[in-house]
Amino acid sequence: MGGSAEANGGGGASARVPVPPARPFLDTFRGNLKETFFPDDPFRSVVRERGAGRRTLAALRYFFPFLEWAPAYTLGAFKSDLIAGITIASLAIPQGISYAKLANLPPILGLYSSFVPPLVYALMGSSKDLAVGTVAVASLLIGSMLSSQVSPTENPALYMNLALTATFFAGVFQASLGLLRLGFIVDFLSHATIIGFMGGAATVVILQQLKGMLGLNHFTTATDIVSVMDSVFSQTHQWRWESVVLGCGFLFFLLVTRFISKRRPRLFWISAAAPLTSVILGSVLVYLTHAENHGIQVIGYLKKGLNPPSVTSLQFTPPYMMLALKTGIITGVIALAEGIAVGRSFAMYKNYNIDGNKEMIAIGTMNVVGSLTSCYLTTGPFSRSAVNYNAGCKTAMSNVIMSLAVMLTLLFLTPLFHYTPLVVLSAIIMSAMLGLIDYQGAIHLWHVDKVDFCVCLGAYLGVVFGSVEIGLVVAVAISVLRVLLFVARPRTTVLGNMPNSIIYRRLDQYAEAQTVPGVLVLRIDAPIYFTNASYLRERILRWINEEEERSKENGEMGVQYVVLDMGAVGSIDTSGTSMLDELKKILERRGIQIVLANPGSEIMKKLNSSKVLELIGHEWVFPTVGEAVASCDYVLHSHKPGAVRDSPAAHENMV
Amino acid sequence: MGGSAEANGGGGASARVPVPPARPFLDTFRGNLKETFFPDDPFRSVVRERGAGRRTLAALRYFFPFLEWAPAYTLGAFKSDLIAGITIASLAIPQGISYAKLANLPPILGLYSSFVPPLVYALMGSSKDLAVGTVAVASLLIGSMLSSQVSPTENPALYMNLALTATFFAGVFQASLGLLRLGFIVDFLSHATIIGFMGGAATVVILQQLKGMLGLNHFTTATDIVSVMDSVFSQTHQWRWESVVLGCGFLFFLLVTRFISKRRPRLFWISAAAPLTSVILGSVLVYLTHAENHGIQVIGYLKKGLNPPSVTSLQFTPPYMMLALKTGIITGVIALAEGIAVGRSFAMYKNYNIDGNKEMIAIGTMNVVGSLTSCYLTTGPFSRSAVNYNAGCKTAMSNVIMSLAVMLTLLFLTPLFHYTPLVVLSAIIMSAMLGLIDYQGAIHLWHVDKVDFCVCLGAYLGVVFGSVEIGLVVAVAISVLRVLLFVARPRTTVLGNMPNSIIYRRLDQYAEAQTVPGVLVLRIDAPIYFTNASYLRERILRWINEEEERSKENGEMGVQYVVLDMGAVGSIDTSGTSMLDELKKILERRGIQIVLANPGSEIMKKLNSSKVLELIGHEWVFPTVGEAVASCDYVLHSHKPGAVRDSPAAHENMV
Repeated sequence: MGGSAEANGGGGASARVPVPPARPFLDTFRGNLKETFFPDDPFRSVVRERGAGRRTLAALRYFFPFLEWAPAYTLGAFKSDLIAGITIASLAIPQGISYAKLANLPPILGLYSSFVPPLVYALMGSSKDLAVGTVAVASLLIGSMLSSQVSPTENPALYMNLALTATFFAGVFQASLGLLRLGFIVDFLSHATIIGFMGGAATVVILQQLKGMLGLNHFTTATDIVSVMDSVFSQTHQWRWESVVLGCGFLFFLLVTRFISKRRPRLFWISAAAPLTSVILGSVLVYLTHAENHGIQVIGYLKKGLNPPSVTSLQFTPPYMMLALKTGIITGVIALAEGIAVGRSFAMYKNYNIDGNKEMIAIGTMNVVGSLTSCYLTTGPFSRSAVNYNAGCKTAMSNVIMSLAVMLTLLFLTPLFHYTPLVVLSAIIMSAMLGLIDYQGAIHLWHVDKVDFCVCLGAYLGVVFGSVEIGLVVAVAISVLRVLLFVARPRTTVLGNMPNSIIYRRLDQYAEAQTVPGVLVLRIDAPIYFTNASYLRERILRWINEEEERSKENGEMGVQYVVLDMGAVGSIDTSGTSMLDELKKILERRGIQIVLANPGSEIMKKLNSSKVLELIGHEWVFPTVGEAVASCDYVLHSHKPGAVRDSPAAHENMV
Repeated sequence: MGGSAEANGGGGASARVPVPPARPFLDTFRGNLKETFFPDDPFRSVVRERGAGRRTLAALRYFFPFLEWAPAYTLGAFKSDLIAGITIASLAIPQGISYAKLANLPPILGLYSSFVPPLVYALMGSSKDLAVGTVAVASLLIGSMLSSQVSPTENPALYMNLALTATFFAGVFQASLGLLRLGFIVDFLSHATIIGFMGGAATVVILQQLKGMLGLNHFTTATDIVSVMDSVFSQTHQWRWESVVLGCGFLFFLLVTRFISKRRPRLFWISAAAPLTSVILGSVLVYLTHAENHGIQVIGYLKKGLNPPSVTSLQFTPPYMMLALKTGIITGVIALAEGIAVGRSFAMYKNYNIDGNKEMIAIGTMNVVGSLTSCYLTTGPFSRSAVNYNAGCKTAMSNVIMSLAVMLTLLFLTPLFHYTPLVVLSAIIMSAMLGLIDYQGAIHLWHVDKVDFCVCLGAYLGVVFGSVEIGLVVAVAISVLRVLLFVARPRTTVLGNMPNSIIYRRLDQYAEAQTVPGVLVLRIDAPIYFTNASYLRERILRWINEEEERSKENGEMGVQYVVLDMGAVGSIDTSGTSMLDELKKILERRGIQIVLANPGSEIMKKLNSSKVLELIGHEWVFPTVGEAVASCDYVLHSHKPGAVRDSPAAHENMV
């Protein structure tokens, strides 16, 4: 370290990297706690108010956002919400019935679920565009998880009670996530995972509809493509042509309306009204032709009247409670992910803010209340919310309108659905599901990030060839594995000097970048944590070994200095500082000096308090790579006066 | 975006950030695969050889490192290894017997375990300093996990078979981790976790020795401090003063020798020889005074002869196989973590390299072979390896010497241990365990990183007040939670201009840094992944809102430009690029221009392929924050000619 004084002078580094002043521990701790659990500062508006009364009002407004918009609600807004509400109701009724069938539940539960939860959401939800209702994927998941242990045909009452109990647990879990500010857990389902999982689930749901489309009576309970195809093609003699014709006809009709609305967004109402139109047309057709006697299955009797209470139906006793709990937690997370994502997307279009944790509390409460009033799991489905948005909804009042429309249906119109053919419901589900298969998104993933594409494909294949649960496990496992690999294997790259500048760039990507003899410049591209500290130590040593071998072969000077560009090292923990400590000792024994360039202030603080800064020498820390290399270079050449000064970096700084 | 052309000219940014050229997918994929699973390039020496014969030899040398050092082995090295081997044998014999008692196994198994495994390790291990043997923590863990289901006193044969089966599974698991190149899993036990866990385990082991020290016959099977203290103080009338006096005497002797050796490293042999001396002294004392009849418990009869084969003892049938499997995996990981860490530490002192995955294969094989020859779980204990190192060992031959010495003991000297008092073994364990409580390490953690200290304390308290398993679960859970929080909550900071420079530094740490009116400079301190993308979007928007509120209060210009310093963003995935996409759209609607500064080449590639670069505009990407701000500033002021040009950054770049 004899050259350090010279290095100070030679590098001309007047702007040394300072160690930031220490802050009291509690300050830092409080700051970190806030950043972790309250990053969005949710109570800002409450804390800012003066006086207990105003604060209570602000807190109430925080938990019940309708208090904010209701006082200023105008007739104009009501007109918009009325149109939007009626539109989504016309979608909600057929979809509700269809998805309830998907969950092996009585169709009437689908209607119940579009009555109470939207009212709760209108009070508590902060999204203006979310339309509340049941969703296909969660319905399928409830169906497949519960029917693995309880048969919906042999024991329908128990099955329904378990579905309501699962909904209760889902709601409690969702609200707790929000209350405990753990909303970020939902973020661990990556974008790629969701595309793959949703696509797979949609495929599975479409395959399940083959039962209805072909008019089959018996069907496999498995959801994987192999079992379903086997089930379909092993009973070709059971296919009913009447059902196939009717189903394909309606599917074609629905797809054409979807296509029209996609081309002309102003004609959104064509595709929005299509499902109800299909139901009405189908019912009339069956009623007139008595097709129910010719292989066309119909919904049959639906009880008139509003939701009966279901508090006593909840099952809190073994042996089925654990099943309901498991189902509730898994479906709750899936439903939550969809609801939050949908809320955020539309908030982005209209430029307002959604508090994820608050939304979780709203969605959770709506499910808890729902489970007590015979509703099963609801969230904000994408398709219905998109229609709501396109129909010009202004506030959550459109949910109230929809709820009232469903109420009227429940009170007076249920007998009209008696003759609705199941095959029409299958066509409605199929056409809705086709929109969930985001093949363009998958292609985009392939172009941008191959790993993300593999994650997506893994989730898709897991769902289609395994089961929805297997697909979910595969997807989450791949995502978590990816996080672990992300943090365990950060990239290190060798930098070289760009000719005639003091800029250093990656050697492997810029052909014109040149190494400086005797100096190895390494860039570490991630925070240094316990998960990657020993990997980084070994990788850095390997870079040095490789460079030494290379220079030996070419007869060049061996490595004298290792400059670590810490610009991308956002933070460091004690394993990281020990790693640098060890590295310094190893390199010292080999006669190599370690030099740090561009460390952030957090890093400087940690290096200082762990005494690693002292060990390396504060004079070996530089604000830029250029200055660091220039100092090394200066020492190298002043110790070997005969050497040619060919490094542009040295020139730049010498002048 | 009318100002972009001007910005191009005004910023004087001749060095635009280029998009790196595309590389074929398979190249990138192969590169990533190699970086992930073969970061240390283990087969370099094999691949480099020409011809099948030489390659086979190189491969053999890779898997059996003794082929490398054996041919060049000298008499001088043998002399050193002989001394080191005899020294560690004198430690291995009493420690082996003591730790076997800790695992509730017959003492003779401890001796067996110091005979076969060291021979296997000498062939396959790459560390020159690791001394193989059983370890206290893993022994205790085997003891507590197995005796929770099988009583070692009521069913000793089954208990021993399960311990051997667990060792077999541990070995298979360890070797598989190495073969599958998954060694990095061990890294997920952070430094802080290990300090806390080891300290807690040592405390628990010391507490367990109170049974032997006080000469108690009955003792709790629980390991938590509350149960142990209750057990000790509820039977004060059973305490045997003879045992206490003898135990404290020997403990004092052992601690004094430890203290001397610590002060004078050259006198290492004093503490190394102390345990065997204690055993001999204690045995002679008991033999002469017939103290075994006065409350001093002794080891008793030890069978003469070498390890019997134990292939047929392994239990691969229910109901106990799962217990053995679970015990094997957990203790295997713990043992592996210690072995690898010890090997690496000494390799660092002597400046040679340890291949973690190869070590795992060696340790795993040694345990598999051990389980077939009546040995239970072994690894490289720190204390014994340190003695080996201090005694001047040169190669793994010292393990062979130790093994031979233990063999001689097994063949001829076992009767000598008949009168060895158990209380001496307790004293030996206690003095060894005191070295594992790294209170200085914990203090260091407190000074450097408070969170790491909490992790350490959590693991310690979990072990001491719960159980070893609970402590381990707590430690791993805290570690994983920390990884998740690390990646879910990266830091974002506002940067300000340092007066009279183009350097930008954190506003919250540098009082002299100044904001530039109308421009908000944010630094993102981590890679942008799906785990933090939505957090970052919300956090960035909150920074903008706060800045707008602040500037409105002070009557300043609102935010016109947001400069994101991407210098520390090491990589980005598709969730990250979508986040930037959304952010751009949100800000555009608010009339704010987004500007990127200093993105790495990976980032540029991803931004380009995801079309986000196109959306933001390539002209809004700058190599440095200074240039970015200068361009914004130029546009701001040329659009408002009356504004005062007071920003030093603008001056710097205008001239």
